[in-house]
Amino acid sequence: MSERIQHAGLRQRLMSAKEAATLIGPGMTVAMSGFTGAGYPKAVPQALAERMEEAQAVGETFRVKVLTGASTAPELDGVLAQARGMELRLPYQSDPALRERINAGELNYIDIHLSHVAQHTWFGFFGKIDVAVIEVVGILEDGRLIPSSSVGNNKTWLEQADKIILEVNHWQPAALEGMHDIYYGTALPPSRKPIPLIRPEDRIGEPYLRCPLEKIVAIVETNAPDRNSPFSPPDVASRQIAGHLLDFFEHEIRHGRLTPRLLPLQSGVGNITNAVLAGLAEGGYRDLTAFTEVIQDGMIQLLKQGVLRMASATSFSLSPEGIEEFKANLDFYRERIVLRPQEISNHPELIRRLGCIAMNGMIEADIYGNVNSTHIAGSRIMNGIGGSGDFARNAYLSVFMSPSTVKDGKVSAIVPMVSHVDHTEHDTMVVVTEQGLADLRGLAPKQRAREIINKCAHPAYRPLLQEYFERACRESYGRHTPHLLTEALSWHQRFIETGTMMPPR
Amino acid sequence: MSERIQHAGLRQRLMSAKEAATLIGPGMTVAMSGFTGAGYPKAVPQALAERMEEAQAVGETFRVKVLTGASTAPELDGVLAQARGMELRLPYQSDPALRERINAGELNYIDIHLSHVAQHTWFGFFGKIDVAVIEVVGILEDGRLIPSSSVGNNKTWLEQADKIILEVNHWQPAALEGMHDIYYGTALPPSRKPIPLIRPEDRIGEPYLRCPLEKIVAIVETNAPDRNSPFSPPDVASRQIAGHLLDFFEHEIRHGRLTPRLLPLQSGVGNITNAVLAGLAEGGYRDLTAFTEVIQDGMIQLLKQGVLRMASATSFSLSPEGIEEFKANLDFYRERIVLRPQEISNHPELIRRLGCIAMNGMIEADIYGNVNSTHIAGSRIMNGIGGSGDFARNAYLSVFMSPSTVKDGKVSAIVPMVSHVDHTEHDTMVVVTEQGLADLRGLAPKQRAREIINKCAHPAYRPLLQEYFERACRESYGRHTPHLLTEALSWHQRFIETGTMMPPR
Repeated sequence: MSERIQHAGLRQRLMSAKEAATLIGPGMTVAMSGFTGAGYPKAVPQALAERMEEAQAVGETFRVKVLTGASTAPELDGVLAQARGMELRLPYQSDPALRERINAGELNYIDIHLSHVAQHTWFGFFGKIDVAVIEVVGILEDGRLIPSSSVGNNKTWLEQADKIILEVNHWQPAALEGMHDIYYGTALPPSRKPIPLIRPEDRIGEPYLRCPLEKIVAIVETNAPDRNSPFSPPDVASRQIAGHLLDFFEHEIRHGRLTPRLLPLQSGVGNITNAVLAGLAEGGYRDLTAFTEVIQDGMIQLLKQGVLRMASATSFSLSPEGIEEFKANLDFYRERIVLRPQEISNHPELIRRLGCIAMNGMIEADIYGNVNSTHIAGSRIMNGIGGSGDFARNAYLSVFMSPSTVKDGKVSAIVPMVSHVDHTEHDTMVVVTEQGLADLRGLAPKQRAREIINKCAHPAYRPLLQEYFERACRESYGRHTPHLLTEALSWHQRFIETGTMMPPR
Repeated sequence: MSERIQHAGLRQRLMSAKEAATLIGPGMTVAMSGFTGAGYPKAVPQALAERMEEAQAVGETFRVKVLTGASTAPELDGVLAQARGMELRLPYQSDPALRERINAGELNYIDIHLSHVAQHTWFGFFGKIDVAVIEVVGILEDGRLIPSSSVGNNKTWLEQADKIILEVNHWQPAALEGMHDIYYGTALPPSRKPIPLIRPEDRIGEPYLRCPLEKIVAIVETNAPDRNSPFSPPDVASRQIAGHLLDFFEHEIRHGRLTPRLLPLQSGVGNITNAVLAGLAEGGYRDLTAFTEVIQDGMIQLLKQGVLRMASATSFSLSPEGIEEFKANLDFYRERIVLRPQEISNHPELIRRLGCIAMNGMIEADIYGNVNSTHIAGSRIMNGIGGSGDFARNAYLSVFMSPSTVKDGKVSAIVPMVSHVDHTEHDTMVVVTEQGLADLRGLAPKQRAREIINKCAHPAYRPLLQEYFERACRESYGRHTPHLLTEALSWHQRFIETGTMMPPR
């Protein structure tokens, strides 16, 4: 069983998840591995949640602060949320139970750029890390760790935590060894140096995580799968959005602003992205690269087809079918995939240098190009900003995508004023819906408004937006960015009151 | 007269500003030097404005697109605005006449991060540059140019423009020669390399601007001063803001998060900044550095006192008294000041690497830490975002400062929801008013709200903010970032309607 633990001394620290969980006490700051449903600890959080429920059953409070790479899965965020065991959570989450608790106001959630998490920890902005709980594939004879299916902030957690609990997950393929590139050249200012990465495939670090062995207080063996959503084929709207974006790429190639090799691709996860990736294959693109956060199913397929030459990321986010394909051809993929710490995958220096094409989903955009990625009606958090800010601000092209309406047409993704801003008018270059693509580059606010309304709004909402904009152009306090403040957020208020943004006829 | 033009052939292209201005025609894109009231062309824009007025007197339209480094002065933005001669202006302005035209909706103004301007020009996002009009100090025998009191985007304008008009300004000291560092290592992706600057004082380029001589169509000699506002001593509120910030620095030093050398300082221009700089001198700081956009009076004084060891910027912004001091001791200052292109002074890669302390003014912040730097009541542009986004997103510390009220207490700088977002909740670490300092690091939205309301709001508005926040915590749609959308912008609407944010008693 413990052939994955080559260091003889460390075998002595093997214990059950239940025993390991006793090393975590109320009020502690616990840093965990995990980025999307990959590489998160699968046993200790559940044992910890059980302890919390037992404590609460006898009237005690048992809550901890939880830091991760990004979202995780039911076995981590889900169980701790259900146990009401988190007083603080950062930086990104997507668990339904956790989201409900956050929006009930029961815990503090800090939504922070993914590239900021490691450095803010180093800066001391989050206080001391008491315990790190990190999933790994194995432990070498000298104590170095083979990272798992996500890297996230693990390097920082291992360095910054007082104590370390490792989960060695036998479900993860041993052949992941060698796929990772852990960069050890970071420093605190004023001692920082240029990061020597100039192509997405460059390896600038080591395949293993260093680990101060004296800090390891427990090792738990597991055999449990990563969990991500099943792959569903792109729907009509996703394929239309992808079509507009692919037409735009061809337009840019014709005008000499892109070559057929494009530039390193970054994309979020989901149907729209998978449709864009599928479209790249159909469009005959070859030898592309990705410099992104997560490897999703679409990228695996493109690697197989040679459309993608290689992909750099910090994590996988594969469906069960995608995992099967990946495991069956791991030697092929290991040559073509590099997993890095998220402070590198999302580093502004590198995104700007490489000139990424950043493609991210959104909740809504307003007529001036401000984008809301995080809040429903200005107050309810969905998931978080993730890395979209790292990429959008620094990319060669920043693209935001959404169907023009959701909830059966009751909610428009194009609104007079967004109810929360995550990406400002200064950062949005392209907005795409199934209706069309708005190219905002080189446009002033009122020009952007006409472009977005005409190209992206759903026909059911377009006349309402036109009417708002025209009236604002006449009646606004200032006419640089015309707005009517008594109406700017009225669509969201109507949605709260009536369940739809559409006014009564 | 023309000893400043060492290249014999180029002397043949000397002409009057009036003649040079005939080389600029309606509809052209004209890129000009200038960053704050320094280094902008002083004669050709005025001659151009006269041509425009003549054309308009006979019923012709004569407008051009104007790109600069940042704001300029009455002889450029002022005269062109009064002549109604701009159809487009970017990236930053502060001229009252121009602002009035923009807010009347008469021209397109694109407010863009200062670090983005050069690269978006290279990317082709603004189309072709027809003419560049660049002020220089002199021309070497081989045709290289001695840059003037600002560098801004001049390297890019010279490279990208079809034709070049030079203004050789004899008022600028010849001794500026050698103070500049023009980096020629930029490239388009995918060919970009790390920028080899690791300390603010590093020189990574050349002291001269290269210039393709065949593109020079006119050289105009001038003898006219740069224009910036006179220096006024800090008022009480500015000194209080500075005091809170300096206390915070000491607090950070005590907790080991800063050393007494601090980190490279970036600051906007104005009273508050000058008060902070004066406070650093009084606090006994020595050997500090600045990595910033502009050298203002306060920095000159700190250099003289040895509080600042050196300063890197892209421009001067000195009062007439500051210019006198600078000119009188130019050899001293040339050893301690480096002027760079704004794509370098504001580069995210460098700001992040150096770990700057970014201190910028703001129009307003909301209770959750979103900052509005640009718009009054959501629609009237003031100046623009400038470089505040480049610095705030990438800094070690991002600080935003304002008096808690303006307009004799009629306007609160702390509001329920900002009417425009330039810096998101994800990017604001510290908010300071004369009331106090809110440290938002590691805080979730509701924690931030309590901190900002208690520390920063003016006592006249504090109870109103508390009441809004408490009611929002009870009644909001979601309770992660509680808001009441029917009231969130009501303070701004009240200001528009009644001239004050304060409700009637």
